[in-house]
Amino acid sequence: MYSDRLRHAGLRGKLMSAAQAAEFFRDGMTVGMSGFTRAGDAKALPAALAERARGEPLRLTLLTGASLGNDSDGLMAEAGLIARRLPFQADATLRRKINDGAVMFIDQHLSETAESLRSGSLAPVDIAVIEAAAIAEDGGIVPTMAVGNSASFVQGAKQVIVELNLAAPAALEGLHDIYLPADRPERAPIPLAGPSQRIGAPRIAVDPERIAAIVVTDSPDSPSTILPPDAETAAIARHVIEFLAGEVECRRLSPRLAPLQAGIGTIANAVLHGLIDSPFSGLTMYSEVLQDSAIALIDSGQLEFASASSITLSKDMHERFLRDIERYRERIVLRPQEISNHPEIVRRLGIIALNTALEFDLYGNVNSTHVGGTHMMNGIGGSGDFARNGQLSLFVSKSVAKGGDISSVVPMVSHVDHTEHDVDVLVTEWGLADLRGLAPRERAPLIIERCAHPEYRPALRAYFAEACRRGGHTPHLLERALCWHERYRTAGSMRES
Amino acid sequence: MYSDRLRHAGLRGKLMSAAQAAEFFRDGMTVGMSGFTRAGDAKALPAALAERARGEPLRLTLLTGASLGNDSDGLMAEAGLIARRLPFQADATLRRKINDGAVMFIDQHLSETAESLRSGSLAPVDIAVIEAAAIAEDGGIVPTMAVGNSASFVQGAKQVIVELNLAAPAALEGLHDIYLPADRPERAPIPLAGPSQRIGAPRIAVDPERIAAIVVTDSPDSPSTILPPDAETAAIARHVIEFLAGEVECRRLSPRLAPLQAGIGTIANAVLHGLIDSPFSGLTMYSEVLQDSAIALIDSGQLEFASASSITLSKDMHERFLRDIERYRERIVLRPQEISNHPEIVRRLGIIALNTALEFDLYGNVNSTHVGGTHMMNGIGGSGDFARNGQLSLFVSKSVAKGGDISSVVPMVSHVDHTEHDVDVLVTEWGLADLRGLAPRERAPLIIERCAHPEYRPALRAYFAEACRRGGHTPHLLERALCWHERYRTAGSMRES
Repeated sequence: MYSDRLRHAGLRGKLMSAAQAAEFFRDGMTVGMSGFTRAGDAKALPAALAERARGEPLRLTLLTGASLGNDSDGLMAEAGLIARRLPFQADATLRRKINDGAVMFIDQHLSETAESLRSGSLAPVDIAVIEAAAIAEDGGIVPTMAVGNSASFVQGAKQVIVELNLAAPAALEGLHDIYLPADRPERAPIPLAGPSQRIGAPRIAVDPERIAAIVVTDSPDSPSTILPPDAETAAIARHVIEFLAGEVECRRLSPRLAPLQAGIGTIANAVLHGLIDSPFSGLTMYSEVLQDSAIALIDSGQLEFASASSITLSKDMHERFLRDIERYRERIVLRPQEISNHPEIVRRLGIIALNTALEFDLYGNVNSTHVGGTHMMNGIGGSGDFARNGQLSLFVSKSVAKGGDISSVVPMVSHVDHTEHDVDVLVTEWGLADLRGLAPRERAPLIIERCAHPEYRPALRAYFAEACRRGGHTPHLLERALCWHERYRTAGSMRES
Repeated sequence: MYSDRLRHAGLRGKLMSAAQAAEFFRDGMTVGMSGFTRAGDAKALPAALAERARGEPLRLTLLTGASLGNDSDGLMAEAGLIARRLPFQADATLRRKINDGAVMFIDQHLSETAESLRSGSLAPVDIAVIEAAAIAEDGGIVPTMAVGNSASFVQGAKQVIVELNLAAPAALEGLHDIYLPADRPERAPIPLAGPSQRIGAPRIAVDPERIAAIVVTDSPDSPSTILPPDAETAAIARHVIEFLAGEVECRRLSPRLAPLQAGIGTIANAVLHGLIDSPFSGLTMYSEVLQDSAIALIDSGQLEFASASSITLSKDMHERFLRDIERYRERIVLRPQEISNHPEIVRRLGIIALNTALEFDLYGNVNSTHVGGTHMMNGIGGSGDFARNGQLSLFVSKSVAKGGDISSVVPMVSHVDHTEHDVDVLVTEWGLADLRGLAPRERAPLIIERCAHPEYRPALRAYFAEACRRGGHTPHLLERALCWHERYRTAGSMRES
C-alpha cells in the first residue's frame, strides 16, 4: 500500500484519516504548516481542523511558509480556528478577520520566521503538518511544490503529521535542496556561491518516531490566480527591460544580468514574461517563488537556472511542468525560504529584486501592504529581504487604481514597508525613475514626471513646490501629506474636486 | 625625515603642503575622504580645499565613512565646496545647507556605499584623501582611528592623497583588518565567524604610483561630544539590562549574550556603560563605532573583544587609550565599514542591535533621521544594517524632548527609517516594550503604557481607541495621524491646549 511513496515500512501503522489526525491538536497550540504561495500546502488537515473548531474551542497559532491554497486560510479563519497567523496570507476571509482585529497577524520578512523560531522569539511549534510526495526509507520527507518553512517546522516540532499527496508525482524527488543554518554561535558561512549550487539534502530529515500520523491525499495545488499581461504591464516590462539593457551597455551589468528575483503577482510575472522578447540570455533566478514566466523562460532557452522556495503555476503550465518534470528538475531547485531569501546570499549574489508596490511617494518610500494606511492586503512577504540586501531594488506598480480614483504615486505613503534607503528604481506604465545617487529633492521631480499618471501630476507638482518653500531635506506639508488618502476614504476619489 | 612613518623611500618626493595637494582637485570631482564618527578624518585637506573654493568655482561630491571631526564638514559647506554629500554627516552648518536644499545629501545605509561604488551605482572616486599613521615599505597605508570606507576609496580612486598624522601613534599598526569582498559573480562567503577573527591585511594595499601627494599633519581627532549619563539614560540602561537578564534566564541568550552593536550617541553609550554594573561577562561587540563605554568595559574585564570600524573617544579616554595601546590592540580590531556592518556577518553572528530613535509610533515604526518629518538631523547611519539583519533590534529614546513639548511616542512617525518589521524592542526611561510576536493592535497598548510619558498617555490611548473603532490591521485616523507634529510646528508644543 503506497509502497513507492511510503518507503519506511514501520510508518505504515501511522496511516490514518485527516479527522483522526486532527485529534492530536489541542486548544492554544502553535502549528507549522507547509505551503508557500498556494503551493505545497497541506490539503486535508485544514478542513479537518476547521471541522473540529466548529464543534469545540480550538484556537491555534498558525505558521506557514507563505499563503495557502484551496481556500484553507479562509476555511480555518471562518471556523474561528486561527487566533494568530504568520508570516503571510492572501485570503479574503482571513484578511477581513485580520482587519477587524479578530485575528492577530504578524507580518514578517519571510527569511526571518525560521530564525525567530530558532532564537525562541516565537513559541516553539507543537505540531508540523507537511505535505510530501514521498517518505523515504529513513523517514526523510520529500516535499512537493514548495519547501517554505517546512524543514524548520519539522526540526523544531514535537510531532509531525505528513500529508502524502498522491497527486504530486514521485519524480519531484531530487528537486529540493534542504539546508538550514546551524544554531549560533557555531554558525558557519552558508557555502552557496551561485543559484544552481546544491548545498544540502534532497529530503527533510526527521526521526520517524516523531511522525505521529500520515494522511493520504490526492489533490493538486490551487492554480495561480495571476492575470494575463495587459497593455500597462507590457509597458512596465518594456521600461524595465530598456533600463536593464542600458545597465548592460554602460557595463554596470553583464549581458547575463545578475540573478533575478521577482515577487508574486501579475505585474512581476508580466515583466519576466517580457524578458522572452529581450536580448538577454544565460539568465538565472534566485527568487522565492517561480511563476509561469519562469517556466516560459526556461523553455525559451533564456533562463539557465532558477532557484526558489516554491513553484506556483496556472493549470496549463502546471500540467506542462509535470509532464516534463525530469527536464525541469535539471534547471530548478527549491530551497527553504530562509535560504532563498537569506540576506547573506542575496547580498553575495547581487540579486536584482523586482517587487510590486501598492503605492509609493515623491521621495521613493514604498507601501506594499496597507490599503489606506490601515487595512492589510497580504503582507510584506520576501520583498524586504531582497530590496534591502540586493544589488538593485526595483518596485513596479500601475500608476492608478480603481478607474483612476486612486493614484499610486502620492505625496506621502500611508504606510512604509520599504524606505527610501532601499528603493533604487520605480516603474509604472508611464516610465521609470532611476533614483540611485539622488537626494530627495532630486527624486521628487523625476518620480512625478516619469511615473505619475498625467492627471495627478499637476497636484503632485504643486504639493512639492509648496513643500520646498517650507524647507527641509525631505520637504513635506504634514497637515496635507495624507489628505489624498483621506479624500479617497471620505469622497471615493483622490482627485481634487 | 619621518623615516619610521614613511617607510617607502621612493614616496618621499611626494611630500608637499596641503595647499599644494589641493591643486590636484578639479571642479565636479568625486572625492572619498577617510573619517568615521569624527575619528580618522583627514585634517589638512578639508581646510585647504575650502580655501581654494573661496577663490574659484570648486564644487565636489564628497564621500566619507561617516561624520567628520574638526568642523571640516562645516568649513567645506560654508565655502560652498560640497555640492553632494554621502553617506552620513553630523555638522550644524552642513545640516542647514542640506535642509535649505543647497547641498544634495544621500542618506545611505553605511554598509552600502562601498557596494554602490563597486557596482557603478555611484560615480567612481577621482581622488581619495586618507589619513594614515604610517606608509609601509610597499606603500601600504596604515589607517588611524577609523577604517570606514578608506580601503574602498583607495581601491577605486584614480589618485590617492595621504595625510600622515604624526599625532596618531605608530603603534596603531596592527589594529586594523582590511578585507573587501570580491567583485561579483566571483564573490566567496566572507570567512568571518566571530568578532575577534582576522581575515584580511593590517594595511590598505595601494600601488605607490597612485599616491599623488603626502601631507604631514600633527593634530588629534576631535573628542567625542557625548554627554555623561543622566537619570533618564540610567533608567533606560536598567530596563535594557533587566530585559537581557530575562532573556538569559529563559535561555534565549547565553550568559555571554551575543555580539553587541551600539549606535553613536549619548544614550547608547550610557546603556553600554550600564553593563559595567551588570552580571554579564565574556561579552563581545560587533559594532560600527566604539565609544568611551567600550574602553571602560574592557577595563572592567567584562568585554572580551570589540570589533568596529572606528573609535571615537572623549579627550581623557583618548589619552588613556593611547597610553595603553598595545594592550587594547589585543582586544580591538577595526574593519572596513562594509564588513563591520555587513548583512551577512550581522545575521550570522546574531547581533544584538541597540540604536537611538528620534521618535517611534504606536505600532513600532521608528524615525531616526527627520525632525518634524522634513529636516535631516544626521542620517540613518548603520542602524538599518543592524536592525534589519540582527537577532534582536532594540531602539532607545527619552520619552520627551524640548522640556516635554515633544513626545517621542507619537500616533504615527513623520518619517520612517525602520519599519515595524525591524523593531523588536522599544525602550524609554519609563519602561520597555517587547514587541516580538505581537500584532499591531497588541503593540500599541504596550508601547503606550510602557514607553510613553504619562502626560501623553491619555491622548495616545484616545487616538488608538478611536482608530480601532474605524478598523484595520494597523488602525489609524489619517486625518489626525500627523497632527501632533503639525501642532508642534505651529504652536510650539505637541500638548493639546
